[in-house]
Amino acid sequence: MNTADLGLPVAVPSTALFTDQYELTMLQAALRSGTADRRSVFEVFARRLPEGRRYGVVAGTGRVLDAVENFRFDETILGFLRERGILDEPTLKWLADFRFRGDIWGYPEGEVYFPGSPIMRVEGTFAEAVLLETVILSILNHDSAVAAAASRMAVAAGDRPLMEMGARRTHELSAVAAARAAYVGGFHTTSDLAAGFRYNIPTVGTSAHAFTLLHDTERDAFTAQVDTLGSGTTLLVDTFDVTEAVRTAVEVAGPGLGAVRIDSGDLLLIAHRVRQQLDELGAEKTKIVVTSDLDEYAIASLAAAPVDAYGVGTQLVTGSGHPTCSMVYKLVARAESDAPGAPLRPVAKKSMGAKTSIGGRKWAARRLDGDGIAEAEVVGTGPVPAELADRQLQVPLVSAGDVVAREPLDAARDRHIAARAQLPLSATQLSRGEAVLPTEYV
Amino acid sequence: MNTADLGLPVAVPSTALFTDQYELTMLQAALRSGTADRRSVFEVFARRLPEGRRYGVVAGTGRVLDAVENFRFDETILGFLRERGILDEPTLKWLADFRFRGDIWGYPEGEVYFPGSPIMRVEGTFAEAVLLETVILSILNHDSAVAAAASRMAVAAGDRPLMEMGARRTHELSAVAAARAAYVGGFHTTSDLAAGFRYNIPTVGTSAHAFTLLHDTERDAFTAQVDTLGSGTTLLVDTFDVTEAVRTAVEVAGPGLGAVRIDSGDLLLIAHRVRQQLDELGAEKTKIVVTSDLDEYAIASLAAAPVDAYGVGTQLVTGSGHPTCSMVYKLVARAESDAPGAPLRPVAKKSMGAKTSIGGRKWAARRLDGDGIAEAEVVGTGPVPAELADRQLQVPLVSAGDVVAREPLDAARDRHIAARAQLPLSATQLSRGEAVLPTEYV
Repeated sequence: MNTADLGLPVAVPSTALFTDQYELTMLQAALRSGTADRRSVFEVFARRLPEGRRYGVVAGTGRVLDAVENFRFDETILGFLRERGILDEPTLKWLADFRFRGDIWGYPEGEVYFPGSPIMRVEGTFAEAVLLETVILSILNHDSAVAAAASRMAVAAGDRPLMEMGARRTHELSAVAAARAAYVGGFHTTSDLAAGFRYNIPTVGTSAHAFTLLHDTERDAFTAQVDTLGSGTTLLVDTFDVTEAVRTAVEVAGPGLGAVRIDSGDLLLIAHRVRQQLDELGAEKTKIVVTSDLDEYAIASLAAAPVDAYGVGTQLVTGSGHPTCSMVYKLVARAESDAPGAPLRPVAKKSMGAKTSIGGRKWAARRLDGDGIAEAEVVGTGPVPAELADRQLQVPLVSAGDVVAREPLDAARDRHIAARAQLPLSATQLSRGEAVLPTEYV
Repeated sequence: MNTADLGLPVAVPSTALFTDQYELTMLQAALRSGTADRRSVFEVFARRLPEGRRYGVVAGTGRVLDAVENFRFDETILGFLRERGILDEPTLKWLADFRFRGDIWGYPEGEVYFPGSPIMRVEGTFAEAVLLETVILSILNHDSAVAAAASRMAVAAGDRPLMEMGARRTHELSAVAAARAAYVGGFHTTSDLAAGFRYNIPTVGTSAHAFTLLHDTERDAFTAQVDTLGSGTTLLVDTFDVTEAVRTAVEVAGPGLGAVRIDSGDLLLIAHRVRQQLDELGAEKTKIVVTSDLDEYAIASLAAAPVDAYGVGTQLVTGSGHPTCSMVYKLVARAESDAPGAPLRPVAKKSMGAKTSIGGRKWAARRLDGDGIAEAEVVGTGPVPAELADRQLQVPLVSAGDVVAREPLDAARDRHIAARAQLPLSATQLSRGEAVLPTEYV
C-alpha cells in the first residue's frame, strides 16, 4: 500500500537535508577509505524511559517511511553542498544517484517499548544507513514523546474523548506531527486543520473569547455562532460570568445545545455547578468540555466531575514534561572485512559513564505469563528461543529499499490500545515508577 | 527587502492550514452576523516568563512575516474545507480571495521581553486578524523558547563558540527553526544542513562513534577522516580509550590537528587531561570540543576547563526545560460599531484565576536609568510620554499587507546581544529569579 492508496494528499519534499553535516562527511571519508560499502546494522533504541514513566510508545514509524522514500539529493541540494564546500565531487556524484536500497525492520507504530528495546533496525551499506540517522531520530524522538504523553492522558480520561489543540504551543509542522502522534496514543480529534488535511484525523473546533468580545453582548455572539453552526455547536461560557453565560447559551440554542466549554477557573467546581444548571434548564444532554492547561494529572483529577470531553494543548505537544525521547541510532554490527559476503561482527563503543551500548544485531520478543499478561521484554543476539518465536516484535518496514509496511493511522492507534492492555496493570498508574517490564538480554 | 534579496532559496508553501479550526468557524459566524469587518486589534504577549527566567527573547518574527505572506487558500485547501463540511460556501468564497491587508507592529526579532510586553500587534478587520492567531503563536512560542535557552547558554559560554546540534532530538522542521532561533540567541553554527540551506547559517560537523567502529582500528578511522577532510578536522576521541585516541589522533594528523571532540564521561576532568596531553604532544593549538547533554549550567561549570567550543543538542531544542513560551493572542480592542471609522473600544475577558488580560491597544518602551541601563518595561494605552518617545519598542512589520521589515538574520542576532547588554547585570545570572525588569502599566 502506498500513501496514495490511503487517500492522503502526500507531497513530502526531499528530506535529505534534515541531516547533520557529519553524516555526509563520514560518507565522504568512508568512500575514500573504501569502507563505505561494508554491510552495517544500525539500531534505534532508548537507554532509558523518561524519569518516572512506565512504558514508551513507538510513534512516527509511518513518517519515517515517507522520509526514507523521499531522501533524495536533487540538483538544488547538491548545488548547495558544492557551493558551501561541504563535500567533494566524487561524494556529490554518489549522492546524485542515491536512494536507500537496504532493509529496515522495527516495532510497528503504536507498539510499546522499554529501555533497550531495538525499536528500529536499519541494514545496508554503511554509506546508505549512516545517512538516515538524523532524520529517523528526529521523527521517532519527537513523535514518540508526544504519543507517550497522549497515552497517559488517554488512560486518565477513560472513556471520555480527548481533543488535541496544542498547535499554537509548538512549531507549526511539529504541531501536525504531534496531532498524528496524539491520535496514535489515543486522542480522538484535533483542532489542527493541517493534521486533518495531511493525515485525515477528525478535526473539531469551538470558539475563542475574542469572538464573544467582538460582539456587543455575549448573547449576540452566541446567536451569531448558533445561527451559522447550529445548536449542536460548543459555546464558550467563561468570558464574563459563567452562570449568566450558561443561561444565555441555553436560551439562544435551546436545550439541544451541543456543549459548553469552560477554559479557566476551578474546573472541578465549575463543572459541577454548570452541570446542575444545565440540568435545571432542561439541557440534560448538553455536554461539558473543559480546557485550560490540562495534563494527565489534571485530567485524572476531574474523573469524578461531570465532564464529557477534554481539550489538551501545551502539555500534550511538549510531551508532558518530556518533549523528546532519548533514542539513539547506533552501529551495532558491520562486515568483518571488505570482502563480499563477509560475516557481520558486533561492535560497540566502550562504555564511559551511562552511555552503554550492546553490540550485535538484535531480535526482541515480549514474553507473556500464563494469563497472557506481558512479563518481560526479551532482547537477544543469537537464535530466537522457540517459545518466543511467535512473540517477536520487529516487523519488516522496508525491504531492499521498498516500503512494505504502510498502514492506515487507525491500525497504529488500535495496536497501541491492544499493546497497552497487555501490560501489567501498574503500567497505567500515573505515579512515577520504574519501567513496568524488565528488559532481559539473552 | 524581500527574501530573494537575502539570497535565500525560499519556498514556503501555503501556511493557511496551520490553523485551529475555530479560527475559520469564527470567521464564518462573524461573516454571517455582520461583525467580520469590525476593525480589531489583537496583541501577542506572555503573562509570565518561564519559572525562574529573568528575560525572554523574541524570535521567529522573520518566520511570521513569511507565514503571513503565504497565508493563502488555494483550490486544494478550499476543496478540503468544503469536502469536510467545515465551512459554508460564502466563507469559502471569501477565503479564496483572502490575503492579509492589515498592519502588524512588533518587537523586532532578537529584542528581549518581559511579562506583559506587547510583543506583536495585529490590526485589521476581525476576519483577517483572527485567522492568523494559530500560526503566529506557533512560530513565536517555539522560536522564542529556543532563543531564550540559547541566550542563556551563550552567556554561560562567554567567548567560546556554541554549535547547535539538536536536530535529532526534535521534529525535523522544528529543528530547522531551532537552529535559526539558536543563532539569534547567540549560537555560532549548526550541524543541521537544512538550516544552512534555508537560513544561511554556517554549518559544521565532526564525526560519530559509528565511523570509528566501522573501521578495523581507530587509527584507520582517523586516517580516513584526515585523508579526506584535512588535518584541520575534528576527531572524536572517546570511542575506546581517550588517552590512546588522542595520541593516535596527533600521530595521524600531526600537531596541526584542528580539534578533538569528547562526548562522554566527566568532561571537566577529561578536558584537563586531554589539554595537558595535547600540549605535551606539541599540539598546543588543537582545540577541545565538548558535547554530551550540555545545558547552560553544564556549560558554566566548564568555564574554568580548557574547553574551546561547546556542542549543544537536546537541551537547546527543548528550551532547556521550557519548550514553549506561554504567549497568547488576545483581542484587546475593536470598533465600537459596524459604522465605518467607528472608534476603537478596549475589550478584555473578565479575569478568572490567573488568565488576566489588559484591554486596549498598547505601546511599549524601555526606560533607562542615568547610566543607560534598562530599569523598566513601560506599557501603556494612552499617549506615549515625551521622555519615552524615542525608547519605543514596537516597529512596523507589515503595512497594509506588505512586509516592511525583512532583515538578515545577523541583524536580529546583533540586536539581541545589544538588548541583553543593556539589561541590569543580574539578567545574566543563571540562578532562578524574577524578571529582571518590572513591567509598569501607565
